[in-house]
Amino acid sequence: MSSHPQQFASDNYAGICPEALAAMTLANDGSAVAYGDDEWTTRASDAFRRLFEAECEVFFVFNGTAANSLALASLCQSFHSVICSSAAHVETDECGAPEFFSNGSKLLVAPSEGGKLTPDAIRTLANSRSDIHFPKPRVVTITQPTETGQVYSRDEVLAISAVCRELGLKLHMDGARFAQACATLGCTPADITWRAGVDVLCFGGTKNGMAVGESIIFFDRALALDFDYRCKQAGQLASKMRFLSAPWVGLLDSGAWLNNARHANACATRLADALEDLPGISLMFPVQANAVFLHARPPILDGLRTKGWRFYTFIGGGARFMFAWDADPARVDSLASDIRALALEEHQERVAA
Amino acid sequence: MSSHPQQFASDNYAGICPEALAAMTLANDGSAVAYGDDEWTTRASDAFRRLFEAECEVFFVFNGTAANSLALASLCQSFHSVICSSAAHVETDECGAPEFFSNGSKLLVAPSEGGKLTPDAIRTLANSRSDIHFPKPRVVTITQPTETGQVYSRDEVLAISAVCRELGLKLHMDGARFAQACATLGCTPADITWRAGVDVLCFGGTKNGMAVGESIIFFDRALALDFDYRCKQAGQLASKMRFLSAPWVGLLDSGAWLNNARHANACATRLADALEDLPGISLMFPVQANAVFLHARPPILDGLRTKGWRFYTFIGGGARFMFAWDADPARVDSLASDIRALALEEHQERVAA
Amino acid sequence: MSSHPQQFASDNYAGICPEALAAMTLANDGSAVAYGDDEWTTRASDAFRRLFEAECEVFFVFNGTAANSLALASLCQSFHSVICSSAAHVETDECGAPEFFSNGSKLLVAPSEGGKLTPDAIRTLANSRSDIHFPKPRVVTITQPTETGQVYSRDEVLAISAVCRELGLKLHMDGARFAQACATLGCTPADITWRAGVDVLCFGGTKNGMAVGESIIFFDRALALDFDYRCKQAGQLASKMRFLSAPWVGLLDSGAWLNNARHANACATRLADALEDLPGISLMFPVQANAVFLHARPPILDGLRTKGWRFYTFIGGGARFMFAWDADPARVDSLASDIRALALEEHQERVAA
Amino acid sequence: MSSHPQQFASDNYAGICPEALAAMTLANDGSAVAYGDDEWTTRASDAFRRLFEAECEVFFVFNGTAANSLALASLCQSFHSVICSSAAHVETDECGAPEFFSNGSKLLVAPSEGGKLTPDAIRTLANSRSDIHFPKPRVVTITQPTETGQVYSRDEVLAISAVCRELGLKLHMDGARFAQACATLGCTPADITWRAGVDVLCFGGTKNGMAVGESIIFFDRALALDFDYRCKQAGQLASKMRFLSAPWVGLLDSGAWLNNARHANACATRLADALEDLPGISLMFPVQANAVFLHARPPILDGLRTKGWRFYTFIGGGARFMFAWDADPARVDSLASDIRALALEEHQERVAA
Repeated sequence: MSSHPQQFASDNYAGICPEALAAMTLANDGSAVAYGDDEWTTRASDAFRRLFEAECEVFFVFNGTAANSLALASLCQSFHSVICSSAAHVETDECGAPEFFSNGSKLLVAPSEGGKLTPDAIRTLANSRSDIHFPKPRVVTITQPTETGQVYSRDEVLAISAVCRELGLKLHMDGARFAQACATLGCTPADITWRAGVDVLCFGGTKNGMAVGESIIFFDRALALDFDYRCKQAGQLASKMRFLSAPWVGLLDSGAWLNNARHANACATRLADALEDLPGISLMFPVQANAVFLHARPPILDGLRTKGWRFYTFIGGGARFMFAWDADPARVDSLASDIRALALEEHQERVAA
Repeated sequence: MSSHPQQFASDNYAGICPEALAAMTLANDGSAVAYGDDEWTTRASDAFRRLFEAECEVFFVFNGTAANSLALASLCQSFHSVICSSAAHVETDECGAPEFFSNGSKLLVAPSEGGKLTPDAIRTLANSRSDIHFPKPRVVTITQPTETGQVYSRDEVLAISAVCRELGLKLHMDGARFAQACATLGCTPADITWRAGVDVLCFGGTKNGMAVGESIIFFDRALALDFDYRCKQAGQLASKMRFLSAPWVGLLDSGAWLNNARHANACATRLADALEDLPGISLMFPVQANAVFLHARPPILDGLRTKGWRFYTFIGGGARFMFAWDADPARVDSLASDIRALALEEHQERVAA
Repeated sequence: MSSHPQQFASDNYAGICPEALAAMTLANDGSAVAYGDDEWTTRASDAFRRLFEAECEVFFVFNGTAANSLALASLCQSFHSVICSSAAHVETDECGAPEFFSNGSKLLVAPSEGGKLTPDAIRTLANSRSDIHFPKPRVVTITQPTETGQVYSRDEVLAISAVCRELGLKLHMDGARFAQACATLGCTPADITWRAGVDVLCFGGTKNGMAVGESIIFFDRALALDFDYRCKQAGQLASKMRFLSAPWVGLLDSGAWLNNARHANACATRLADALEDLPGISLMFPVQANAVFLHARPPILDGLRTKGWRFYTFIGGGARFMFAWDADPARVDSLASDIRALALEEHQERVAA
Repeated sequence: MSSHPQQFASDNYAGICPEALAAMTLANDGSAVAYGDDEWTTRASDAFRRLFEAECEVFFVFNGTAANSLALASLCQSFHSVICSSAAHVETDECGAPEFFSNGSKLLVAPSEGGKLTPDAIRTLANSRSDIHFPKPRVVTITQPTETGQVYSRDEVLAISAVCRELGLKLHMDGARFAQACATLGCTPADITWRAGVDVLCFGGTKNGMAVGESIIFFDRALALDFDYRCKQAGQLASKMRFLSAPWVGLLDSGAWLNNARHANACATRLADALEDLPGISLMFPVQANAVFLHARPPILDGLRTKGWRFYTFIGGGARFMFAWDADPARVDSLASDIRALALEEHQERVAA
């Protein structure tokens, strides 16, 4: 038994899934040419092209911070701006990485409850200023699913890309949990990316069973010009690239990329379903991917912590539970049971008071 | 048998060594807190502190490009300059990464045959300009061993750090193959770093048996202030950090870090010894680490290529052979034998002509 | 008569004041050593040191964008953040210059009606995050007077600097119209800067009668280390520096710096006083410097435009009138008279309707 | 009489020429719209378009550091490189400004005696590396005339632009003393710029009689896209723009731009002619613009300094004399006379020894 019982605090607390590990182990046989000129990297790139049914350009970098920041930097200059939601990871949790990689591009933030951008919000921000004293909007970035687990439908992406085209903006998708969105929507990856007008996708591997690694996929190949130089200069070219690319082969060829996501999503739904109609508990957002955000009275959250559960909390009594590829349904049930007991107990005390 | 016969083109063509792989596998048991707040990262940091007999600050990043560039950026501002040898990797093979991470610091390059900097060269560059129209020297970086496999003795490092102190310069050591230098010198890591005046060391893992990862070690802890933020912003904070840190535990606790290096060095010496007194062949540099640089007549190099050997070549008939932790002595002998046969054949043809 | 009738749209529509022009003309006599090693630059620096009763370090740059951005960049690293008001010029009108010069520092914006920061707002922002996924607060910048013409009292600056000291933050003052604040407060420049805890001041010249030029004044001299290199690298070192510094001698030695500001402020008050108790007209902010912000019904503003007046407008019916050193009181009266007539006319029409 | 006797150390020691000053004074009449939307700026831009017989895009910035750095930054990304001569000002005297503005572009330096680049040197540098570990060449910059006063002929520029086109490189011309080159060649400005394949020209004003200011001229207008935002963000947008643009109207409309240059050139030739056949004195470079570089025995240079002459010196006994628009021929004769006397005296002593 592990010394680290599952805590559902984050999906990056999980380890490497079997399919990724097996591919890494296979890739470790003998020597291979460095910097991506190896067979595994070719295979992984081809696997992405098959998955997306497109002759896209594929790059492998170490993490999501770099993937998103490099992609955005390739789409704008320092005096341009990037439109995003107020909940966007690039705004709230990257320590200024987009500004750093782009040498100063400003993020224009649209207020958003659930993290989704809308065509109206984009249009409002894009048109709010047109003088040279303010950075010129050049890119829109959306997170699919959002940081709160909301999934953009294909139509929503299409509506956003339409306004982007109209306003001369490029469309970037932060897909740190892109697989989870595919699992939810039941669409092909192509349908909710390039066929819906997305120019560049950052497809997350780390949160879906890899040790390390994200891929950047340019559907408009012209935008990928010299992107390999950009990665190298920014410290994102792995010398033993096969260990970044082979796990993708493992995930994509086996279908684990989607199965992992389905499992994670199912665990979130399992928790949400088990908490329906409980007093003192409510969902902050609809559960559409692998996250559950709960409003819960403080004594309930305190009680959970006392019982050893670990989770992220937010001002106002919110708690985030995040499910990974390896989430144990029995542990989810155990969590649900603890929440239920605490909620009912807290309810009775309040009623009694 | 591997489909990729060992080619000795680079030590980053090798895979993951058993000790590193075992640690990764162990670390993959269950979930762990992200971003370095896990046990493996604590253990790896402590292992470095024991190895260096110092309360140093330790950071784990993805690759050498980032390790060196971030370390240098933390030691200077954009209007400062970094003194290095003309052979320094940061100058010749990082696609401008030091300039990018520092937002414009200039590298001042001292001509060097074997890649070593000298106190005189440093002094000359540092004193060449003192006006504000030229970047102010602030850091010296040396590669240990150099890109040509030369090892700085402890006295050489001491002499360099003395001139650094005198001129108000910080001393950075690019130790992409630091273990190989330790193996050659038989010194403790402390003796050739902080006890010899080094402020910051980048200690390479990838070229010594890891899949991915380098560590940055600040002996002057004050210089590490907010360095964690710098890593995060620059896309060098791994979420599943345990997979970057655990391999270090495997390498350091087992002694493999040094054994791997000794083996690689021994293979280089083995090749060099086998080629002594061959006509048409000479060493470009003394063999002090895990590289052999040969001058060889073009027909000899052509012959090697025909036989399937892969190696880096240089203008003027140079060839580099680089040995990794997994270099097979039998393959080294086979290479030596091929070189010998080609050299003698070429010699006879020349004599006959 | 000028072909450009005064329009009160901005105080940078004005030309060069006589004292500045006279000094430039004098400075144009013969040749002078370049890059600041001339007598005028020495005299100007000394004049600032006398004015501030302090051994401050003084630098002359071309404009306010650069002055503020360079000062902020010298106080923080790319992974740090700068706390400012939502109305701060550095946030709203510099096209991302602070982010560019600092290579990515993020501005943390406190909501503010009149543009003033408060100790509470600073504390809230500074304490909102303490993890490495968000830039670490390092500097506070306040605009004195604010972009809406509000003047921080000495006590307000003191209260802000106290919270800065407590939280380990540096305090920067954007003084694009610093002279106007001095004129309003009747304090010595020292009293509302270094004696109140300001670390660095950007003192505006352009908006107070100069052709071009701002000065950056470091009260904590240690913070100015190598700042001359920073200016040079950033394209802010004038070769014929005397033409940037001499006007300061003209302004400071003659007292014009303060007289210009008093005059500008008086014109603002003159307009405000003339509009008291007018129907359909109200001040958006108290008039404390050289700006008047009016709420006025759209027909009134339309009427003013029809009569040829030029001014900045804001969403919701706001209009900004800005008075320079050369504002003609007769023109101010004429403007007041036009507003009065339009307001009364509009009022009658509304009453009649 | 001036308190600063002419010293010929640099052409930026000179003041403002009458035509530039007159235009500034005229421009100072009344108020004008800020940030370049004024009549003077329109007139200056149009004057440039007439001068160059082209619909070029024209921008006005504060100094040459910014002009060249911004122009280069607009032509390449951070992972690209700029090919220049080892004598290029951007390499030797801008404190890393090109690297700063471009966020890390590397300068690839071709060895050069007189500062001229050749097609061969460009080709060699451009082809020296083609892997992603080294910045990709993207721009060539030439200084016309070079820092040593050498003028590229029209054919030389054509040959360079031909190799640029062939290799996919843009061609930038640093014309800090462009007027002097025009004066020497007797060509139209168009003939040695866009008609010879130059994409962007930085045309110097400061060294030709202005107080402050350079213009950036894009002959390929597509390259100027959003360049106004770039200038603004980089602190190079003057609010009272008329004072940067009006002097250009003064210089261009009057022909002073060329007359000033001719005069400066003539003074250089006057000195050179006067020193022919002197013992112990030789020209380091042919005199083709407004600079004279002399080899002179140390006692001669010491003697000149004793007599109060100021000039730049170089390793190996070189001295630079630089002539501005206001150089006094009588002072030139006086300098020549002093050199002659010292040279003859030194010669006699040597002969006697």
